[in-house]
Amino acid sequence: MIRVGINGYGTIGRRVANAVSSQDDMIVVGIVKTKPDYISEVASRRFKIFVPDSSYMKAFQDAGIKVEGTLDNLLDDAEIIVDATPEGMGEKNKPLYIKKKAKAIFEGGEEPDVAETSFNAYSNYNDAIGKSYVRVVSCNTTGLARTLYPIQQAFGVKHVEATLIRRATDQNDSSKGPINAVEPSLKIPSHHAPDLKTVMGNIDVNTVAIKVPTTLMHVHVVQVDTEKNASNDGVLEAWNNYRRIIHVKKDDGIKSTAQIMDLAREFGRDRSDLYEIAIWEGSVSAKANRISYIQAVHQESDVIPENVDAIRAMFNLADKEKSIEKTDKSLGIEKRVY
Amino acid sequence: MIRVGINGYGTIGRRVANAVSSQDDMIVVGIVKTKPDYISEVASRRFKIFVPDSSYMKAFQDAGIKVEGTLDNLLDDAEIIVDATPEGMGEKNKPLYIKKKAKAIFEGGEEPDVAETSFNAYSNYNDAIGKSYVRVVSCNTTGLARTLYPIQQAFGVKHVEATLIRRATDQNDSSKGPINAVEPSLKIPSHHAPDLKTVMGNIDVNTVAIKVPTTLMHVHVVQVDTEKNASNDGVLEAWNNYRRIIHVKKDDGIKSTAQIMDLAREFGRDRSDLYEIAIWEGSVSAKANRISYIQAVHQESDVIPENVDAIRAMFNLADKEKSIEKTDKSLGIEKRVY
Repeated sequence: MIRVGINGYGTIGRRVANAVSSQDDMIVVGIVKTKPDYISEVASRRFKIFVPDSSYMKAFQDAGIKVEGTLDNLLDDAEIIVDATPEGMGEKNKPLYIKKKAKAIFEGGEEPDVAETSFNAYSNYNDAIGKSYVRVVSCNTTGLARTLYPIQQAFGVKHVEATLIRRATDQNDSSKGPINAVEPSLKIPSHHAPDLKTVMGNIDVNTVAIKVPTTLMHVHVVQVDTEKNASNDGVLEAWNNYRRIIHVKKDDGIKSTAQIMDLAREFGRDRSDLYEIAIWEGSVSAKANRISYIQAVHQESDVIPENVDAIRAMFNLADKEKSIEKTDKSLGIEKRVY
Repeated sequence: MIRVGINGYGTIGRRVANAVSSQDDMIVVGIVKTKPDYISEVASRRFKIFVPDSSYMKAFQDAGIKVEGTLDNLLDDAEIIVDATPEGMGEKNKPLYIKKKAKAIFEGGEEPDVAETSFNAYSNYNDAIGKSYVRVVSCNTTGLARTLYPIQQAFGVKHVEATLIRRATDQNDSSKGPINAVEPSLKIPSHHAPDLKTVMGNIDVNTVAIKVPTTLMHVHVVQVDTEKNASNDGVLEAWNNYRRIIHVKKDDGIKSTAQIMDLAREFGRDRSDLYEIAIWEGSVSAKANRISYIQAVHQESDVIPENVDAIRAMFNLADKEKSIEKTDKSLGIEKRVY
C-alpha cells in the first residue's frame, strides 16, 4: 500500500483524495489544509488533517478541528505527495519534498520543468515509470491528449488546430470573471499547445483559448490534419477502445454542457464528476485527411484518473493497461454511449 | 429623396430608421409597430407609426399613441420597405410588397431565396444595383465578409475555417439561454458558411458555431489558407484601407468584448453602437500561406451601414465607393486604431 499525502485540498486535491481512497494499492495518510472552513470540517471526518506549519494550528484548534501535525510531519509518513496547492506554489514546495525524500506529483498549473516528466495516462504512461517527480497536465491538455492519442494511433497526426472555449471559473469561485463578455487569450498559441507537446511528443499543434461566462465545462473545437485518410465511422471506432472518452448525442437531448453535467449526476459518482471527455457524435466529421469534432471537458475532474495512474507508474505498481483498468473500475468509468 | 418605410422596429429596425434619417438622399416615411410599448412611445416622437392591419389600432389608441394607418397605407407612400420583422416573416410579407410595387430589403434571418441577391457592401455591392429585392446577410456573416474580403483581394483565399463563439441573445431579451452552459450547433457547417457564399462567390469555407452565455458581442476565431504568402504587417495593411474594420489592443486595456463595447460608448453614437468589426491586433498571425485572427462582432449594429448602402445600390443612387463613403461619414465611421 503506497502511503499518499495530499497537499492542498481544493478542487483537485479533494477529488484525488477520494480517488486514491478507492484503490486497493494505495492509501491517503493525510491532507494539508490552510483554513478551518466547511471543507476542513467535512474532510476531518474522513482524513487526518495537517497544516503547512505550526502557525496555522491555533485557528484550527479555535474551530474545534483536530490537527495531526504539520506538512513536515506528514512527509515523515507519506511516500508520495500529491501537490494540489494553488498555481506556482508546487515549485516552492518542491525543495521540502526533496529534503524529506518523498516523491511528488504536481498539477497542470505548475511549469513543466517542476517535474521529470509531464503525464497523461493514454499518451505517455511509460515516461513516468520509476520517476520521483511527475506533473499531470491540466484539464484542457488532458482533454486534448485523450481524444488526439487514439487519432494519432489510428491515422497519424500532421497538424492540430483547436479553439478552446473556456469556462470562466469553477462553480464555487465567485472571484473571477468574465460575467458578461467573451475574452480571448491573445497569447497564441495559448499555453495548451506547448503543454500538449509535453505528453504527446513533438505534435504540430496550435491552440486558441477564449474565456466565456460559464462555470460548468470547457468546450474544444478540434481540427486534425491526419497522415492517413479517415472516415466518420473509423474515427468513432478509434475512440471506442478508450473508456475515458464518451459520445453524446443531441438527439438524446444533450444540446449543451448543462445537459452533459446533468447526465454526469445520473452516474452517482463522487461529487457528480465526469472523468470522461464527452464528444458530440454529431460534430464528428472526417473527410479525406481532415478530422473535426467538438468535445467538452469537466475541468474539475478529468485529471483525477491520471493522478491515480501517475502514482502507480512512479512506484511501478502496474503497467499502463493494468493501471488504467484498475483506476477506471474503481471510479466507475466504463464504456458508455448516450 | 428615396422614401423608406421600416416594417418591424426591433433591434435592427430602429437602428436602420436612425441611420436612414442621417442620410441626405433618403427619408423615413413611417415605421410599423405591433405593440404600443415603451419603444413605440419613444418612436412616435420622431417617426410616423403604422400597424400591420386595422386590428392592431385599438391597442395603440388605448395607449394614447397616434397611428397613421396600416402597412398597406405605408406602402402607398414608401418606395422601399426595410423588412426587419422576426425571422421568417419577411418571406410572408413579400407578396404584399410585390402587389404594392415597393422594393424591399430583407435581413439575414430570412432564407437567401427571398431576394434576388444577398448583400455585403464590401464584397458584392454591385450585385444589388437596380434590384428590387435584396437581403442583407446576418451580423456574423457580415463580420466574416468584412474582414475576409480584404484578405481575398490582397492574398486570395483557398480555404477558411472559422469558429464562431456566439452571444446567447441580445441585451434586452431575457427569454433565451443558455444561462450557464456552452451550446455547440451540431449542424456543421453552421448556416454562416453557406450564407457567406451568397456574398463572396464560391469561397471554400467551414464554420462551427458555439453559443455562450453573454449578450454583448459574437467572437470569431478565423483561419484562412491563402493563395499568396502573407505577413502580419501585410494583413494589417490590407485591412487598413477599410473603415468598417477597427483594430483593438490588449495593451490598451481591451481584453474582452466588455471593453470593446465600453469603447463604443465613448464614440457617442446612436445607441452606443459599434458598426465596425473589431480585430484584436495581437491575435493576427500570418505564416506563409496561413492567416489567423480573432474578431468581435456587435450583433445589434454591424449590418446597419449595409442596409443604407443596399438602398443606394437598389436605386442606383451612387457607386460602391461613393455610397460607403457617404454612409460612413453620416454614421461617424472613420479610420481608427486603439
